[in-house]
Amino acid sequence: MTVYLTRRERFNAAHKLWVNEWNEEENRAVFGKCSNKNWHGHNYILFVTVKGTPDPKTGFVMDVKKLSNLIREHIIDKLDHSNLNLDVDFIPKEIQPTTENLAILIWQQLQPLITECKLHSIKLHETENIFAEYFGD
Amino acid sequence: MTVYLTRRERFNAAHKLWVNEWNEEENRAVFGKCSNKNWHGHNYILFVTVKGTPDPKTGFVMDVKKLSNLIREHIIDKLDHSNLNLDVDFIPKEIQPTTENLAILIWQQLQPLITECKLHSIKLHETENIFAEYFGD
Amino acid sequence: MTVYLTRRERFNAAHKLWVNEWNEEENRAVFGKCSNKNWHGHNYILFVTVKGTPDPKTGFVMDVKKLSNLIREHIIDKLDHSNLNLDVDFIPKEIQPTTENLAILIWQQLQPLITECKLHSIKLHETENIFAEYFGD
Amino acid sequence: MTVYLTRRERFNAAHKLWVNEWNEEENRAVFGKCSNKNWHGHNYILFVTVKGTPDPKTGFVMDVKKLSNLIREHIIDKLDHSNLNLDVDFIPKEIQPTTENLAILIWQQLQPLITECKLHSIKLHETENIFAEYFGD
Amino acid sequence: MTVYLTRRERFNAAHKLWVNEWNEEENRAVFGKCSNKNWHGHNYILFVTVKGTPDPKTGFVMDVKKLSNLIREHIIDKLDHSNLNLDVDFIPKEIQPTTENLAILIWQQLQPLITECKLHSIKLHETENIFAEYFGD
Amino acid sequence: MTVYLTRRERFNAAHKLWVNEWNEEENRAVFGKCSNKNWHGHNYILFVTVKGTPDPKTGFVMDVKKLSNLIREHIIDKLDHSNLNLDVDFIPKEIQPTTENLAILIWQQLQPLITECKLHSIKLHETENIFAEYFGD
Repeated sequence: MTVYLTRRERFNAAHKLWVNEWNEEENRAVFGKCSNKNWHGHNYILFVTVKGTPDPKTGFVMDVKKLSNLIREHIIDKLDHSNLNLDVDFIPKEIQPTTENLAILIWQQLQPLITECKLHSIKLHETENIFAEYFGD
Repeated sequence: MTVYLTRRERFNAAHKLWVNEWNEEENRAVFGKCSNKNWHGHNYILFVTVKGTPDPKTGFVMDVKKLSNLIREHIIDKLDHSNLNLDVDFIPKEIQPTTENLAILIWQQLQPLITECKLHSIKLHETENIFAEYFGD
Repeated sequence: MTVYLTRRERFNAAHKLWVNEWNEEENRAVFGKCSNKNWHGHNYILFVTVKGTPDPKTGFVMDVKKLSNLIREHIIDKLDHSNLNLDVDFIPKEIQPTTENLAILIWQQLQPLITECKLHSIKLHETENIFAEYFGD
Repeated sequence: MTVYLTRRERFNAAHKLWVNEWNEEENRAVFGKCSNKNWHGHNYILFVTVKGTPDPKTGFVMDVKKLSNLIREHIIDKLDHSNLNLDVDFIPKEIQPTTENLAILIWQQLQPLITECKLHSIKLHETENIFAEYFGD
Repeated sequence: MTVYLTRRERFNAAHKLWVNEWNEEENRAVFGKCSNKNWHGHNYILFVTVKGTPDPKTGFVMDVKKLSNLIREHIIDKLDHSNLNLDVDFIPKEIQPTTENLAILIWQQLQPLITECKLHSIKLHETENIFAEYFGD
Repeated sequence: MTVYLTRRERFNAAHKLWVNEWNEEENRAVFGKCSNKNWHGHNYILFVTVKGTPDPKTGFVMDVKKLSNLIREHIIDKLDHSNLNLDVDFIPKEIQPTTENLAILIWQQLQPLITECKLHSIKLHETENIFAEYFGD
């Protein structure tokens, strides 16, 4: 019996989309307002889903408090009130901090840390109209 | 690496559920209040999900602005403030405009137009309590 | 001690905005897509707020179940799955069914029926981006 | 053509997480505040998803009103305003009423009752930050 | 210049509505399912609004972090995962824990503690369909 | 008859809270993570409420499309994808871009432009847990 358990967390961050090899006009053509050199920002909403069999005694796939602490320590504390292009150790400088790439990078951080069950997906909302989801392959 | 990218759009439309071969009583028995001959309507919420590998330079599975424009031109501009039984070229008159059928019809419109990555799913909310999802088969 | 108690209800309806003395072009100029002759529709969300002193024994400003039943009998049962221009006894044919006018008309229906405390406001959401509120004067 | 149709329902209930063989301290260590002996409670939100081919005439995977009635009779009427540890015939006393276990138990109740199409998933929200989903295996 | 600043907090609690002098049948007649002797519960959402002039240097009506800490220490830590009839020092046993009364009681706790600006209102959501608001008189 | 009509709009922006006369430690002490020198950001949600008597013919307090265009031209186009400390002509450099101050500044921009009815309030959400409201005095 496999149950999927999801924890929602939030962070607020600045970013811009910008390719260094391109000039301002070229960046504007591809990224539009997202290339504003003085940054912009979002209230990101993160959904981390793990899967496993509920423990017969506790009824837990995983202790959701432990899952929350793990997400906060390894993801939220690094991303919240940060600049995603400049401040975060696990976001390489040459990688665009798009919602798609952030979902992959958050997966790569969390996947090795979830040992008592399995990480299933990372879903990240950038606005109420845009979100990305990654399942690890 | 496959990432799923979703864009939310909205439209407001009138419709009714009605089988021409049935009389008013028979339609009422099957469709309840949804068969009201003077129509009713909804604020529909549409989620279009595409999938693909993020471009190494832009970090985009697909330019979400381009996806939004495409949905607006081919779906929203035709459905918004329309009567789904009477006004829309891609909804055949003999097909009930249920949430289920609308999801299929929207898929059929969008699927050929999404060429740089793949359409993954169409999810359509009719009310806060009812939604349908279609994956193309 | 005055406490304000609010009950949320919902209804789905069709309508159009149309002045009979104007031709199609004039109506289009003023009402835009809302003048579509074949109607469109919305999921309306209604918030009815009453005010009064909580009863010392029950702790109720008003029995919220009773308030809900009253709204359903006198408002929702008439508006849900209706055409607001054609089907509703308390919406005069010469009055535009805008969110503003609907809020006033719903107030006028409910105000005399709320006797154990006082009606404070009617708030009506037409979309997630538009709502109107009326306080009775 | 398989379409997935979802109906949302809600119930409000009390529960606690507690293993009888453990003392208060041990329960507190594992379940934290959820082990409060005087109970606590939640507004649960339930999403029931069925799948099938829309009927060519009605456009229904399943009559959503019938689905709603079925959920209300067999699930909501038993869980709403109940104590999940004490009051519900289909929740065994030795099973923790965690979101994970509730999703499985609700699946087991509904699965045999949905005969004209297939039950696809049970999703249950305990708070805005925690939900569980079960697909039947 | 008066600006109104609101902080949202949440708590999950059990309660029942019950008048001791009445028997089970009488309680059932007035309170319906809310009188279930084994309790039920809710995810309460609390909105605390303060008002004042923004500080010319910090731009704060009040430090919203300080407001949040104050609400958590004096309200949330006492109400979260509690039984509102049994566990909370500032809810008198003879007072029904209705949304209306809880809003008043929370006001009475917080009002003396907010000294750098003024408490304006307490709004408390019991479900997505019911909320109460209190302004202090 | 006065009806209050509200339009919701959204913008995404970067900002930081920082007093120039203070050093980093002092700014950190007052503003916490909001003083991060590399900025952070939010998805702001703006509610603009106007009030007036519905026009007897159109049923409009104000044409909501016109209200939306006005907000977009004078507020959203300037704030969306901007840096609130650096990029916006109507935000003085010496004023902290707190939610409170932004609400006042947006009021001051819009109030003279709304001539056919009256501006009633500006409500601005910074996160799902924090919002400010200003009524013009």
